[in-house]
Amino acid sequence: MNFEFATAQRIIFGCGKIDLLPELIKGLGKKAALVTGGNAERVGPIFQILKDAGVEPAAFSIKGEPKTDRIAKLAAGARDLGCDFVVAFGGGSVVDAGKAIAALLTNTNDLMDYLEVIGKGLPLTEDPAPCIAIPTTAGTGSEVTRNAVLHSVEYGVKVSMRHPKMLPDVALVDPELTVSVPPAVTASTGLDAFIQLLEAFMSKKATPITDAFCREGIRRMGDSLYRAYIKGNDLEARTNMCFASLCSGLALANGGLGVVHGFAGPIGGMFEAPHGMVCASLLPAAAQANYDALRARDPENPALGKMQEVAQMVLNSPTATIEEAIEHLKNMCTQMFVPGLEDFGINHSDIPAIVAKAKNASSMKGNPIELTDEELTYILYESLHAPIDGVATLYM
Amino acid sequence: MNFEFATAQRIIFGCGKIDLLPELIKGLGKKAALVTGGNAERVGPIFQILKDAGVEPAAFSIKGEPKTDRIAKLAAGARDLGCDFVVAFGGGSVVDAGKAIAALLTNTNDLMDYLEVIGKGLPLTEDPAPCIAIPTTAGTGSEVTRNAVLHSVEYGVKVSMRHPKMLPDVALVDPELTVSVPPAVTASTGLDAFIQLLEAFMSKKATPITDAFCREGIRRMGDSLYRAYIKGNDLEARTNMCFASLCSGLALANGGLGVVHGFAGPIGGMFEAPHGMVCASLLPAAAQANYDALRARDPENPALGKMQEVAQMVLNSPTATIEEAIEHLKNMCTQMFVPGLEDFGINHSDIPAIVAKAKNASSMKGNPIELTDEELTYILYESLHAPIDGVATLYM
Repeated sequence: MNFEFATAQRIIFGCGKIDLLPELIKGLGKKAALVTGGNAERVGPIFQILKDAGVEPAAFSIKGEPKTDRIAKLAAGARDLGCDFVVAFGGGSVVDAGKAIAALLTNTNDLMDYLEVIGKGLPLTEDPAPCIAIPTTAGTGSEVTRNAVLHSVEYGVKVSMRHPKMLPDVALVDPELTVSVPPAVTASTGLDAFIQLLEAFMSKKATPITDAFCREGIRRMGDSLYRAYIKGNDLEARTNMCFASLCSGLALANGGLGVVHGFAGPIGGMFEAPHGMVCASLLPAAAQANYDALRARDPENPALGKMQEVAQMVLNSPTATIEEAIEHLKNMCTQMFVPGLEDFGINHSDIPAIVAKAKNASSMKGNPIELTDEELTYILYESLHAPIDGVATLYM
Repeated sequence: MNFEFATAQRIIFGCGKIDLLPELIKGLGKKAALVTGGNAERVGPIFQILKDAGVEPAAFSIKGEPKTDRIAKLAAGARDLGCDFVVAFGGGSVVDAGKAIAALLTNTNDLMDYLEVIGKGLPLTEDPAPCIAIPTTAGTGSEVTRNAVLHSVEYGVKVSMRHPKMLPDVALVDPELTVSVPPAVTASTGLDAFIQLLEAFMSKKATPITDAFCREGIRRMGDSLYRAYIKGNDLEARTNMCFASLCSGLALANGGLGVVHGFAGPIGGMFEAPHGMVCASLLPAAAQANYDALRARDPENPALGKMQEVAQMVLNSPTATIEEAIEHLKNMCTQMFVPGLEDFGINHSDIPAIVAKAKNASSMKGNPIELTDEELTYILYESLHAPIDGVATLYM
């Protein structure tokens, strides 16, 4: 048993906890970079809270996924304005952007110097500016991870800026903030959280600590994703989903992921598609491929026992089988109108390029067994169409 | 669902991980306060590691439990020497002492100003000096808690110095360091960890995050305490116990404890006795009292379901009952020669004073149900003798 575990210094969770924001920013400085998704109606009250607390907020908006050039520009702007700290209020993209901007406020090299894969991957030399992360979707768990996923349009990839000090100082998770999330986003983000829990649990790099978070996250999630999807103001379901998302972030940041996220990174760099939906399209075939490969080549792998445990948890039955669980995953995707990869513009001819890129993705290293090119190809091929043919294309 | 969670910024766990110490102290300064239990044979190698890393170590030794006047004196000494950071290497008392000294290096008021209950309980105004906590027993989980328990001889109580910033910066948990712990200390510290897991799980202040740690800690602990007790070099058992201890610290720091620890604080202030053994003496009667009180006055309390779950986990049987689990606790105490409270010099006549003090103990606030004076008295009365009469007095 060997592991390392790190997280945000402080996690505050609960309905209405946004009211603690004035207290949390005390002593952090006079000027705040308020990083948001740019929805004025949502951001207005946060802006006011900061002003009432005697802080001068400067708003920085992120539309869609954070692009490297945009982040570099916003960070330079925040530096010029003399921002002392960052409040990131939004979905996973916004939180990632906020974490990157907090790091770049004090680390003033070119952004490319700090990027993995396409840049120099240099470590940060200075502590990032304080960062308070306030997620408004239940999906990525980015409030407790130590990387920011940025999209380089130039290179056609998603890459991470990563450092232990990029963990936000405070993760403030208020489920009430997620009540107004529309169903399609609830589905996409919630499926991402669910798949993160599954992959972190099965990961080669899983630890007893990450196992604890995965078990508790999957157990508490229960049927809450579907409940939140069909009834946005089901606060109990929203709360469970925020908790599941938080657990998924705590787990993946310390235990890695697997083949679904290994694919989702390159696909996200090459095609415009909601991350959670891409992951969900891949999930049933990926689960089947892992199951088959483990049984054939590594039947003693503890991931098989964990698959069995997941089956019992998601089907809430001590006699559930892995086969039944995979069927359940397909039905879950169908219920939430998960499309096939084809619906994102991916064709047969794209498969070899995606396989080549995915093999080097950092998430792939967590997969419990190394999959062959044939197996990776099978997953993509099987995922081109919605899990249950012809049913789930309404989403687009 | 409302909770807050905080922990050491970095937890490193595994056999041989002590080798990472040189890397971990990089950049922390030139002079280290090395807080230890004063066993030269054990401390020598750590001393050498620090010197080889170009750091000048000053050794500060703690014998037995940390006394308030001793801590104040050591902290003043460390300040005079210009120590930049603290390495605490030892059992729970040493780690607590190290955390207190790290706080007092930068917060220079009189120690009493910062103490709860008997002092002013003032918050720290400065960030403590960096602190690396290296536990050498598997018991208190102090490496991931935010308080230091100090003994005031003058007041005859144990009190805490407590602040979120007192969480060590790094918790370095190396199970190999615990291999040489003698059986009586293995039993006392291990029982403390086990009881912390049980009380934190049942606590009124438990959260889904602390539940996750308790479940994983209890599950992984299995029969490892007894195995480590009878065979000190069973590294797998030692590893499981270190993990259980770590989980117990993570849980109690964020979810509180219960009646056993509510009693153990005052008893520890009034009588000389190993903390874990005091807790173990109290455990069977405390479990019985809580079980009876919950059934009688609050049968819907979720702690009853958790008791049932614990019974199944510790007896490893889906049909185990709470009654059987309480019998199991008694046998566990007998196997490890847990004495009765009488063996620590506690008499019938002391019971009212202990009850009075325990009612105000901070740990008591976590107990799942408020116990009456009669119930508290019953627990002490039942715990005067070893759980199975006449068997367990060999320990003394």
